[in-house]
Amino acid sequence: MSELAQRLKTGERRALAKAITLIESTRADHREQADALLTELMPATGRALRLGISGVPGVGKSTFIEAFGCFLLERGHRVAVLAVDPSSTLSGGAILGDKTRMEKLSMDERAFIRPSPSSGTLGGVAEKTREALLLCEAAGYDVVIVETVGVGQSETAVAGMTDLYLLLQLPNAGDDLQAIKKGVMELADLIVINKADLDPAAATRAQAQITSALRLLGSGRTPQGDHPNALQRVLQVSALKADGIAPLWEAIAAQRDSRVASGAWAARRREQSLAWMWERIQAGLRQAFVGQPGMAARLEAATAAVREGRTPASTAARQLLAAFKLRSPS
Amino acid sequence: MSELAQRLKTGERRALAKAITLIESTRADHREQADALLTELMPATGRALRLGISGVPGVGKSTFIEAFGCFLLERGHRVAVLAVDPSSTLSGGAILGDKTRMEKLSMDERAFIRPSPSSGTLGGVAEKTREALLLCEAAGYDVVIVETVGVGQSETAVAGMTDLYLLLQLPNAGDDLQAIKKGVMELADLIVINKADLDPAAATRAQAQITSALRLLGSGRTPQGDHPNALQRVLQVSALKADGIAPLWEAIAAQRDSRVASGAWAARRREQSLAWMWERIQAGLRQAFVGQPGMAARLEAATAAVREGRTPASTAARQLLAAFKLRSPS
Repeated sequence: MSELAQRLKTGERRALAKAITLIESTRADHREQADALLTELMPATGRALRLGISGVPGVGKSTFIEAFGCFLLERGHRVAVLAVDPSSTLSGGAILGDKTRMEKLSMDERAFIRPSPSSGTLGGVAEKTREALLLCEAAGYDVVIVETVGVGQSETAVAGMTDLYLLLQLPNAGDDLQAIKKGVMELADLIVINKADLDPAAATRAQAQITSALRLLGSGRTPQGDHPNALQRVLQVSALKADGIAPLWEAIAAQRDSRVASGAWAARRREQSLAWMWERIQAGLRQAFVGQPGMAARLEAATAAVREGRTPASTAARQLLAAFKLRSPS
Repeated sequence: MSELAQRLKTGERRALAKAITLIESTRADHREQADALLTELMPATGRALRLGISGVPGVGKSTFIEAFGCFLLERGHRVAVLAVDPSSTLSGGAILGDKTRMEKLSMDERAFIRPSPSSGTLGGVAEKTREALLLCEAAGYDVVIVETVGVGQSETAVAGMTDLYLLLQLPNAGDDLQAIKKGVMELADLIVINKADLDPAAATRAQAQITSALRLLGSGRTPQGDHPNALQRVLQVSALKADGIAPLWEAIAAQRDSRVASGAWAARRREQSLAWMWERIQAGLRQAFVGQPGMAARLEAATAAVREGRTPASTAARQLLAAFKLRSPS
């Protein structure tokens, strides 16, 4: 295992790919090896800028990541692109991280692109992506982009594993109300109006509207542990023309510098890690609970009784918990 | 127990108060009696309009509830007022549900006011309030108001147990950015600009700003299971002058009628009940986990290792879960 860790740390892309395949495996022995590998590599992690990117289909995510990634390579960065897409269970992972969508980036030796794990729940997919992110950091990628499409709670999952979460918008956002899910825009640290060249007037209008809406709807602490006054920024970009990329990178750097100075940067990472630990504990407990012999039938009956208003939900929960047997500790 | 249920169902306020004291008790035998009572009363529940109300201190919540509650009594309704306030552990429950704040309402036989349970976590307080809500319904109150102040996640808890969630705002919302926590306004089905008489121009400006901000920031499905097009409404009220209460009640009735017709009303209640059941199951599992002998020390060590970046969060979670012993089912 240490040999794989060594090769990975020198930045060998095949070693990184192999390590990610290992953490994605569901075999128990692979899982043990993966945990050992991750623990061994932990000291080499934590040094990248972790950037979440999402946006509805059609917003131009691939073109944006291609342009942004190439810009970063030119500046001497090494860029990894990961994806969280629970829907890839159905699509076989073809939607996100498809290398053909980012032709220039995928052919560059200093970039690494990995599609979303193609099976599992959102929690499982998110866990594998979080671990892949650590592996990319250990392999020396100093910008790790985690992209997602608006499926279920995937935006929250991505915002919860990245330092900055960037939401791509179309210039006509003000007219296209159905495109944005409630609460998603408030997760964003940066909002990028892409394809601004298509309709500059609409892009400028959308920029002003979104800016004032965000100001109005509160600036409190986010679930990601931001400091109260972390200002959200709205910028215009035309990824196709590679226009606006440099100002965006400056805005990202400015947010990073200000948060590093205030301590919010490190605090967010600590909170994310502990939240992730507890999320996995809760998922494991739930799995043990649901999987206990006889529990499936009990749950089905309780669910029906609660749905039909025959049993109060809290009473049903207490009865189910009483039926769940815990062994005395060894 | 059936005698208490009978007296409660005739609308006897002392029986209702006694039943709520029973569900608030932490004694195991009381808990069993409470579950039996709740189950017996379930067929008599579900008929009230459940209305959540929140707003920052100073917004005039008590005056509003007093004016709104008296308006409802005049229309022949019976009104119960409950509260969710986890901070009342410190304050002894004096902040919310204090009857002296709602003098007219509290003296009326057709109204019932109950302060927040004065101990427990937010989850525990919310559970007791949910159960008290069912008891109020069984006692014939056809409008149950659940109020909360902006503490922690209490707004989410209240929105998760009510049919409509109403957020009170001050006319100067646009200038008073710090007052609103991120995400809270998006939970609201109705936003009421209170004290509109103090500055009518500011109230009208705030109404227009909030309306357009809400339109812009998405109209998708909320965590409470609303239908995508459930439109949020922004209204002006002056509770002190009892101005705007009738139009507000009409807006509430319109939302109810439209959602009842679409099936969204019943769907939200079913989803709330099942979410509540699972929330309590998760809380119970977590309690069993944390309370297992030896787990506290393990958790402390794991938390430190994860905070300091020595152990990946997922690895720590797996190790802790492996240490948690489950007994084979009987």
